[in-house]
Amino acid sequence: MVDLEFIQRLAHDQGGKILLLVMDGLGGLPRPKDGLTELEAAHTPNLDRLAKEGCTGLSIPVARGISPGSGPAHLGLFGYDAIKYEVGRGVLESVGIGLDVNPGDVAIRGNFCTVDDSGNITDRRAGRISTEAGAERVARLTKITIPGVELEVKIAKEYRFALVMRGEGLNPAVSDTDPQATGVPPLPAKPLVPEAKKTADIANKWIEEAKHWLKDQAPANMLTLRGFAGDPNLPKYADVFKLRAACVAVYPMYKGVSKLVGMNVIPTNVNDTTEDEFKHVARIWKDYDFVFCHIKYTDSRGEDGDFDAKVKVIEEVDKHLPILLNLNPDVMIVTGDHSTPAMYKSHSWHPVPTLLHAPATHMPDRSQCFGERECITGGLGQFFSHELMALAMGHAKRLEKYGA
Amino acid sequence: MVDLEFIQRLAHDQGGKILLLVMDGLGGLPRPKDGLTELEAAHTPNLDRLAKEGCTGLSIPVARGISPGSGPAHLGLFGYDAIKYEVGRGVLESVGIGLDVNPGDVAIRGNFCTVDDSGNITDRRAGRISTEAGAERVARLTKITIPGVELEVKIAKEYRFALVMRGEGLNPAVSDTDPQATGVPPLPAKPLVPEAKKTADIANKWIEEAKHWLKDQAPANMLTLRGFAGDPNLPKYADVFKLRAACVAVYPMYKGVSKLVGMNVIPTNVNDTTEDEFKHVARIWKDYDFVFCHIKYTDSRGEDGDFDAKVKVIEEVDKHLPILLNLNPDVMIVTGDHSTPAMYKSHSWHPVPTLLHAPATHMPDRSQCFGERECITGGLGQFFSHELMALAMGHAKRLEKYGA
Repeated sequence: MVDLEFIQRLAHDQGGKILLLVMDGLGGLPRPKDGLTELEAAHTPNLDRLAKEGCTGLSIPVARGISPGSGPAHLGLFGYDAIKYEVGRGVLESVGIGLDVNPGDVAIRGNFCTVDDSGNITDRRAGRISTEAGAERVARLTKITIPGVELEVKIAKEYRFALVMRGEGLNPAVSDTDPQATGVPPLPAKPLVPEAKKTADIANKWIEEAKHWLKDQAPANMLTLRGFAGDPNLPKYADVFKLRAACVAVYPMYKGVSKLVGMNVIPTNVNDTTEDEFKHVARIWKDYDFVFCHIKYTDSRGEDGDFDAKVKVIEEVDKHLPILLNLNPDVMIVTGDHSTPAMYKSHSWHPVPTLLHAPATHMPDRSQCFGERECITGGLGQFFSHELMALAMGHAKRLEKYGA
Repeated sequence: MVDLEFIQRLAHDQGGKILLLVMDGLGGLPRPKDGLTELEAAHTPNLDRLAKEGCTGLSIPVARGISPGSGPAHLGLFGYDAIKYEVGRGVLESVGIGLDVNPGDVAIRGNFCTVDDSGNITDRRAGRISTEAGAERVARLTKITIPGVELEVKIAKEYRFALVMRGEGLNPAVSDTDPQATGVPPLPAKPLVPEAKKTADIANKWIEEAKHWLKDQAPANMLTLRGFAGDPNLPKYADVFKLRAACVAVYPMYKGVSKLVGMNVIPTNVNDTTEDEFKHVARIWKDYDFVFCHIKYTDSRGEDGDFDAKVKVIEEVDKHLPILLNLNPDVMIVTGDHSTPAMYKSHSWHPVPTLLHAPATHMPDRSQCFGERECITGGLGQFFSHELMALAMGHAKRLEKYGA
């Protein structure tokens, strides 16, 4: 089986430029009206032309039948076997909201919860308070200081937040304090290896302080910590693929995962439109060998169950695609990280329509447009998403021949 | 994942006969004129009939995106994961020119180079002297003898040759003497483990002698050695597949790799035509369970970039195919070891058209002829080349049921 060490052996730093355009949650399911999926229903003359000229197929995120979260789904597209390279929950939650996790740091997911007068948990999610209410509690927690460690805490969503510890001698091998039950008190953080004692002690001190700041904040009058995790120390793009790589994304999660693999994260504005993002790509194109561009709202509208709105997001991408096409990338890939069918309102396991356009070197096939059914007939066949980067590298002539 | 141990457990020595016809570098890419590939453009009534009656698919050599050399590409077709079973460069070069590499031997690639009066390399490839000039130098080197070891040296091509050491106590863990730079002298051969000291000493003595024989032979007045490798000790066909297997090939490389997996190599003449090769197969057919027949010139014409000539080679194969069909093999497979599109003039990563014909037991599909696009729709789907032998074995009813 191909692994990153194998790719690294063959990769060289000369060759074509690669553009990876990811429409989050792109794959869909047929609507009852006419049996068309979101992508099939969308009017996409540019994508259809690319599919016809190029080669299509279906990308399987992680493994057949598995619905991935955004973190593993993107790691897959970036070439990393997401089962082998697992990024801890604390790290994903932290990078997902824009907190840096650097080597040596420990990142932790936190939940606000409700406790009764005896300190026993009555609601593990603090009545699902609003994000605003969660942010108010987090503001209180930022006042906690503990000598010898730098602490950063940030609201994620509703009752969820993330905590990052920075300092010398930290170790993420610490147990969760969430007992996964009500009627009992939160557990103390316990070191799972002797080297993690300092980290567990800091966590317990921080929880003790937090108790004080939260005691009159019911229903969010206590918290639990879980998913202690360190920087996953992923092999970096410059080393494995020998690529100068950049990420153009609006949401923190995608910036965070890109940063974990060593891409340069291009500054964007949270309100940037698809057109804005494509213009960012165009602006930085000359400085990079590989650009990953992420479109969020296909997934969001899929999660909403809003078929028509997801179609519109796809059409918006198609409309502005000439901004990217004018760059004449040697290899252009359009895909999704997973499917989020509007009919399913959630991430799903369905293989994701994928097109690869690399003038004169792609496998000939009979696909005439970009859509689920058409991609089934495509020359790329069905493949695991983490095989896609080797295909991109091959088409960009960035891999040496293997053996004589 | 299936490995050879698993196949070996299930394989038994009764069953049908298998014929594996490999057209080297078979896969192609569309020509601008009409968008047809070499195989699609070729007039191949016999292959088309087999594809229509049988089942087609696409074979991925090594892994998606990876362009293999002939060695790993053939190991794949023979059922060996070419990443797991890596054959050293020295061995591939040696067997590729017809030198035997047996257990205990050490095989090495050599380059003639040019050195100045101070002994510093000025040209790592000795001005790319002709093969004839290289052979003259090699003839001088055959005069070198070193007590306790048998030495065989043979020209490969231009400035390249191979050296095989035979004797007791040899070990291939020896460093290259090629410094991969000019302006510096060749490096001494160094043992990378203590057990390789004898081998390194022999190499250094041989180089010292060679210096004497080459000193007036500028531009090839020195040499470097690299890719020290031993017999890869591959599992053998008789053990794994329980097959009496034979190889009919014209080029040494394919004979060599076949020998490494334990096939009997049938004597052929270097000028044998496709028809001659097929007659060899017919002559020995009754004595074997499995015959591998290799056609070289599809690859050669692809490397030349000569689309029409590659088409002609394919048509020649089709024309003489009845010689093989008259043998009524129980399982007949026609494929390539990799693609060598004339439009690309090089080995490439593209999946290779494959057909499997096994009357009454192959998967039904809709493929009507033999070509890249048609194989995309075939019942074999896309598979890794090293999975093909298990398919062949299954269709030949040579594998026991797995489990009760």
